[in-house]
Amino acid sequence: MKYPIFAQRMARVQPNAIGELLRMGADPAIISFAGGYPDGTLFPSRALSEIFAELAGQHGAQSLQYTVSDGAPALREQIAARLVKTQGAACSASDVLVLQGSQQGLDLVGKLLIDPGDTVITESPSFLGAFIAFAPCEPRYRGVRMDENGMDMDHMEAVLKDTPRAKFIYTIPEFQNPTGVCLSLPRRQRLIELANAHGIFILEDTAYWDVRFAGEALPSLKSLDTQGRVIQLGSFSKILAPGLRIGWVTAAPEIIAKLGLLKLAADTQCSTLNMAAISAYLARHDIEAHIDVLRGAYRRKKELMLDTMRRSFPQEVSFTDPEGGLFTWLTFPQGFDAEAFMRARMLGEAKVAYVPGASFYPEAQEANHARVNYSGQSDERIVAGMTALGRVLKDELARRA
Amino acid sequence: MKYPIFAQRMARVQPNAIGELLRMGADPAIISFAGGYPDGTLFPSRALSEIFAELAGQHGAQSLQYTVSDGAPALREQIAARLVKTQGAACSASDVLVLQGSQQGLDLVGKLLIDPGDTVITESPSFLGAFIAFAPCEPRYRGVRMDENGMDMDHMEAVLKDTPRAKFIYTIPEFQNPTGVCLSLPRRQRLIELANAHGIFILEDTAYWDVRFAGEALPSLKSLDTQGRVIQLGSFSKILAPGLRIGWVTAAPEIIAKLGLLKLAADTQCSTLNMAAISAYLARHDIEAHIDVLRGAYRRKKELMLDTMRRSFPQEVSFTDPEGGLFTWLTFPQGFDAEAFMRARMLGEAKVAYVPGASFYPEAQEANHARVNYSGQSDERIVAGMTALGRVLKDELARRA
Repeated sequence: MKYPIFAQRMARVQPNAIGELLRMGADPAIISFAGGYPDGTLFPSRALSEIFAELAGQHGAQSLQYTVSDGAPALREQIAARLVKTQGAACSASDVLVLQGSQQGLDLVGKLLIDPGDTVITESPSFLGAFIAFAPCEPRYRGVRMDENGMDMDHMEAVLKDTPRAKFIYTIPEFQNPTGVCLSLPRRQRLIELANAHGIFILEDTAYWDVRFAGEALPSLKSLDTQGRVIQLGSFSKILAPGLRIGWVTAAPEIIAKLGLLKLAADTQCSTLNMAAISAYLARHDIEAHIDVLRGAYRRKKELMLDTMRRSFPQEVSFTDPEGGLFTWLTFPQGFDAEAFMRARMLGEAKVAYVPGASFYPEAQEANHARVNYSGQSDERIVAGMTALGRVLKDELARRA
Repeated sequence: MKYPIFAQRMARVQPNAIGELLRMGADPAIISFAGGYPDGTLFPSRALSEIFAELAGQHGAQSLQYTVSDGAPALREQIAARLVKTQGAACSASDVLVLQGSQQGLDLVGKLLIDPGDTVITESPSFLGAFIAFAPCEPRYRGVRMDENGMDMDHMEAVLKDTPRAKFIYTIPEFQNPTGVCLSLPRRQRLIELANAHGIFILEDTAYWDVRFAGEALPSLKSLDTQGRVIQLGSFSKILAPGLRIGWVTAAPEIIAKLGLLKLAADTQCSTLNMAAISAYLARHDIEAHIDVLRGAYRRKKELMLDTMRRSFPQEVSFTDPEGGLFTWLTFPQGFDAEAFMRARMLGEAKVAYVPGASFYPEAQEANHARVNYSGQSDERIVAGMTALGRVLKDELARRA
């Protein structure tokens, strides 16, 4: 062949930490805090079991057949109604597209907006899965500095002025992945103003929105949007069950129309059965009551983990105290390489896994961080894992001192 | 903005017949032969109902949780074992990637191989869903003429010589969509030789492979492959239930590795629950016996439809007599526009829908064809719909004479 076998975009699509770390998490000898697993014991299994049995068992079951590509109409209605109720956002069924998890929204929005060489602006650090999704579209990245109130808007403004081909800002305003931090209300307002002034889209990822267990809910960027610039992604993965693979996108009508074409092209439709099952669950059960149970459970797990870390970690290691979501973000002393430590000592001696932080950075990587999940493991394993990690960390830092 | 909002690729992603026609099919007043719907009354509903109830109902249900991106390991084993058994192809679990229907395979292979301006060679006509999937990658197309034995290999050779940037050949060797035709064994052998000589990939779509109700099974292109050039797509949509959205791809290890990265990027993974349910179905039930039932039912429906067409259609309209699959392909007299007729008279007077053939063509469109599905409607509606269509067709052709 006179030309490369693989398309040029494949040069940017490379194996990375997530795949390897999910495999590590599957080793029963390792207590993994690497994934973003919700607590499986909290899934509404009995309710879903009854619903699936009924839907799959209907003669000539409609739920096993093809359906319309944009998603089951009843479910689109329910998602829109719930967004109106929980966010006060203007939203109707036709503004909602059902997706194969919100990850698919990242893939489709990348396809919709990014030409090779366009720039995507993200929090620094940001969600690794977004970098993976955008990679085939070959974007460049600019990262915006964060503190305990989310992105620094002065830095955002400087980046926007400095980046003529910025295409959109990708942000997780609630309990950000990986840091667990929320974007404050004044910064949300300024972000909308900046997006309007620079004529740029915002991709708002609300995967963790509902899992708030402390503090007060803040307006979503979509509810603050004045010019149809916000494309919002959401998901049932954290509030119902990730194994169903159902999420959604809501945006201005011309954006939804284009994303609908890309959804049809990508995989025809989501599982009819899984959409019907979630629709039935929402119709028959009180999902808000279920989410309240999750909030209580995750607050307790977060506190258990942070208490254990406060007791067992060396003082030089700090961590965020999130008001919701699934993650805390560890910061080790300058010069500490979280990935090297994990490979050299932590996996073998503490039998614990996290996600080293370097791969979460859109530009210059910082090696002295790690993302830790507190939702997926049992209380016993949280205490055992974090105690063991603290012990090995203390030893490691003492050796270095 | 000084540059376009949408990525350049979106110029090729446009609304088309499938979306509109699926909407028409949803109108209960219309008897639609437009979709590729399997017969819902043949779904193994009771078995699936029991399996779903059990899997979703397990405490801390693993089947509702995240799993590995490449697909449930047990299901990959079962798919590989079945390919060995039914095709005699060399295949193991690691050669298989579970996908969101085989449509996702078209999207991922497009991403893997196509740079803008590369050429994809297809049957002429070919599957509309493939054109839709490849569109975001901005390929060109060359079509290869077909007869009752599939693609004309002299024409294929001429096209290959004439197309330096041909990237792969997309083909449906069994019961092709839309024509229902099979590629003969000598042509399969020559196709492999030509692919080897020209250093080109073959994307073999076997979505209908198992639904053979007449004639003898032919070797798959994958089983004839000598150089790892065949990427094969398969699906449970036609042999189990399309609403589960589970298909697969099998190919050489370096291809599977790249496609696995693209799958992770696109939507993380398929539904854990649906993969587990199909795996349990394959373990506990005899899918070959189930497929035998489908074969008998679809042969009967095909014969019912063709008998009705023979009785009621004007002689100037011909149609293929497929040995399997879900479709027959109508050819109207030269100068007849199947889409204009459908809109002007057929929908209103016969209350019947098909897919006009023009949009199935990769290059010059032929307007005097239509694709008709015989699997999705009841016997009564097949007879009523085809009788009504014949009546309006006779009147239309008589007016023109």
